[in-house]
Amino acid sequence: LLAVDEDSIVADIAAACAQNHTRLCVPIGDDAAAWRPSRSALSVISSDVLVEGVHFEHEWMSAEDIGWRAMASNLSDIAAMGARPLLATVALGLPPAVPRSRILAYYDGMLACARANGVELCGGDLSRAPAVFLALTVTGEVRPSNLKRRSSARAGDILAVTGRLGASRAGLAALRDRVVLGEHEADALAAFRRPEARVAQGRWFGASRSVHALMDCSDGLASDLARLARASGVGARIEDVPVAASAAAAAAQLGERPEAFALAGGEDFELLVSIAPRAFAHLARRFEQRFGRPLYRLGRLLADERVVVVKDGNEEALERTGWDHFS
Amino acid sequence: LLAVDEDSIVADIAAACAQNHTRLCVPIGDDAAAWRPSRSALSVISSDVLVEGVHFEHEWMSAEDIGWRAMASNLSDIAAMGARPLLATVALGLPPAVPRSRILAYYDGMLACARANGVELCGGDLSRAPAVFLALTVTGEVRPSNLKRRSSARAGDILAVTGRLGASRAGLAALRDRVVLGEHEADALAAFRRPEARVAQGRWFGASRSVHALMDCSDGLASDLARLARASGVGARIEDVPVAASAAAAAAQLGERPEAFALAGGEDFELLVSIAPRAFAHLARRFEQRFGRPLYRLGRLLADERVVVVKDGNEEALERTGWDHFS
Repeated sequence: LLAVDEDSIVADIAAACAQNHTRLCVPIGDDAAAWRPSRSALSVISSDVLVEGVHFEHEWMSAEDIGWRAMASNLSDIAAMGARPLLATVALGLPPAVPRSRILAYYDGMLACARANGVELCGGDLSRAPAVFLALTVTGEVRPSNLKRRSSARAGDILAVTGRLGASRAGLAALRDRVVLGEHEADALAAFRRPEARVAQGRWFGASRSVHALMDCSDGLASDLARLARASGVGARIEDVPVAASAAAAAAQLGERPEAFALAGGEDFELLVSIAPRAFAHLARRFEQRFGRPLYRLGRLLADERVVVVKDGNEEALERTGWDHFS
Repeated sequence: LLAVDEDSIVADIAAACAQNHTRLCVPIGDDAAAWRPSRSALSVISSDVLVEGVHFEHEWMSAEDIGWRAMASNLSDIAAMGARPLLATVALGLPPAVPRSRILAYYDGMLACARANGVELCGGDLSRAPAVFLALTVTGEVRPSNLKRRSSARAGDILAVTGRLGASRAGLAALRDRVVLGEHEADALAAFRRPEARVAQGRWFGASRSVHALMDCSDGLASDLARLARASGVGARIEDVPVAASAAAAAAQLGERPEAFALAGGEDFELLVSIAPRAFAHLARRFEQRFGRPLYRLGRLLADERVVVVKDGNEEALERTGWDHFS
C-alpha cells in the first residue's frame, strides 16, 4: 500500500502546479481542466488511466471491453464539465507477449466508444511496459457560459444522479469474487465491461442555468459526494439511494445493506448534479422526456459541512468507502 | 519481444482510426495531431510515455530528472510541428512503495521543464501500477500557416539538424553499460537526464516558408529520417553527421564508428529540418545569430527512395538502428 491517500497527494500536487497557472480557467482538482484557445472557445482536457491488475484483469473482459471502458471513463470526465468531447489520444503500455491482434482489439474498443460519442482518436504513443495500461487524454469544448464545476454547489440545492448505482461494482463482485447474481448477472457484467458515459446528459445539464454543479461519480458516490461538498464548502444529506437491481442482488449475497453497497460502488459513470431547488421538479420532468430515464433525487445540500445519510429515519455520517486506488 | 514492429502496428492503428476523422487537419502518424478549436486557432496535441525499466531506471537518475525528461520528450513533439506548447496533463502510474516525497519530486521535475518552456501542468490522473510510468499529453497552438509536417519534404531539399547527436546515448552507455567517458561524462549524463526540447527553434522554423518539413529525431536519426523520407515520398543522402564529443568518446570505448553511434542514438530531441536549397545558407546564418549555435547540414533529399549515408566516399544503405521499444 502507498503511504499516502489520493486526495491528500493531489492537494499537494495542485499547490505545486498552481504557482504557474496564468492560462487556466479551471485548475487541477475538478473532473477536467479548462482554458481558452481563442476568445470565443473554451476547451477542456482530462487524462485518465486504466492499469491491468488494478482496474481490470484480462480474464474478466475482452480487449475490446478494456478499450471501451478506458474511453468511457475519460469521456465521463468531459461530460462532467458540461462539455462536448472531441478528440482523444492514448498512451498504450504493452508487455512483450501481447499479440498484434490484441493491440488492435484495444483500439477497436476505444474506437467503438469514441464513435458512439462523436469523438475522434487522434494519436498517442506505444511503449513496452510490465503490465498493460491505457492512459487516455480527451479534449472537449464548451460554451464559456455552459462550463460546470464541482465547486459551485449551493446549500439548499437538490442533489440528483442520472442513474441507479452499484451495477459496476456488482459486475466486479461476480467476476472477481464469484458472487452469484442469477438473472442480474448479464446486467452487472455489461455495466462493468461496457459502461456508458453520460455525454449527452452532461451537455444538456451544461446548458441549464439551474444546474449549479456537476461531477461524475466514478470513484463511488460516497467518495465523490464528499469531494463535491468540500469543493463547494457545503454539507449534504442523502435521503434516497437509487440502487441498481444487480447491486441489490450482490449486496444480498454478501450480507451488506444495498444502499451501502451502491454508495461505495465506483465506475458507474453516472453524473452527480446539484440543482436549484425551485427548478428541480421541472428539470427532472424534462430530463425524463429527453432521455427516457428518470433523474433520481438523492437528497439536499446543507449549509453546514456535515455529509450524512438517512438510515431508518436517523442521520449517520457518510463513510468514504469508495474506490481509492491507493488504499 | 513483441511479435510486431512499431511502425507496422502504428500503420494498422492509423488505418483503423482514419475511418472516423472529420475534425483533424493532421491525423495519426506525425509528431502530433492538429485540429481547429475555432476559425482562427489551430491546436496540436501529442502523448508520450516514459516507463520504468524501459526508458529509465531509478539508479540512473533522480525523480526530478525523470519528470524533466518526460516533459522534454513531449514538448519536443509539439516543437516538431512548429507550434507553441501551452498545457500538459500527466497520468502517473505508481507502485505501492513509492513515498510521497518521490511523487512530488516527479512533479517538481515536470514543472521545472514546463516553466522553462512557458507550459502549464493542468491535471491528470494517479493510479497504482506495477512499475512507474509517466504518460504525458501536451497541447499547443500554432498559426495555421506555420504548421509543419514530416510529409512535405521535397527532393533537393537540404537536410539539417539543430545539434550534435549521440550524447544521450553516450549517457545511457555510461549509466547502463558503465562505459568510461572521462572528461565527457558530465555532458553525456546531462544530455541523458536533462535533455532540452528545441521549443524556441521549432516555433522559429514554423515561421519560415523555406522550411518544408520538420520532425524531432527522438528515436535516433537513422529511424526518424527513414520515417520522414517515407512520409514525404523521397529519399535521403547523409553526407555529414554532427557527432557529440561524448558520443565520439563512447563510440571509441565500444569500438564503434562515431557516425554510426550518433545515427543510432535516440532521445537527443534535436529537430530534423528539410529546407529549400536556395534558402539554406541564409537560414543557417540567421539561426546561428538567433540561437548562438550552428544549424548542422546533414545532406540532401533525393528524388528516388534510397536512404543512404556516405562513408569513405561510398554510399551505403542507412540501417534503421534506432531506438524501437518493441525490438
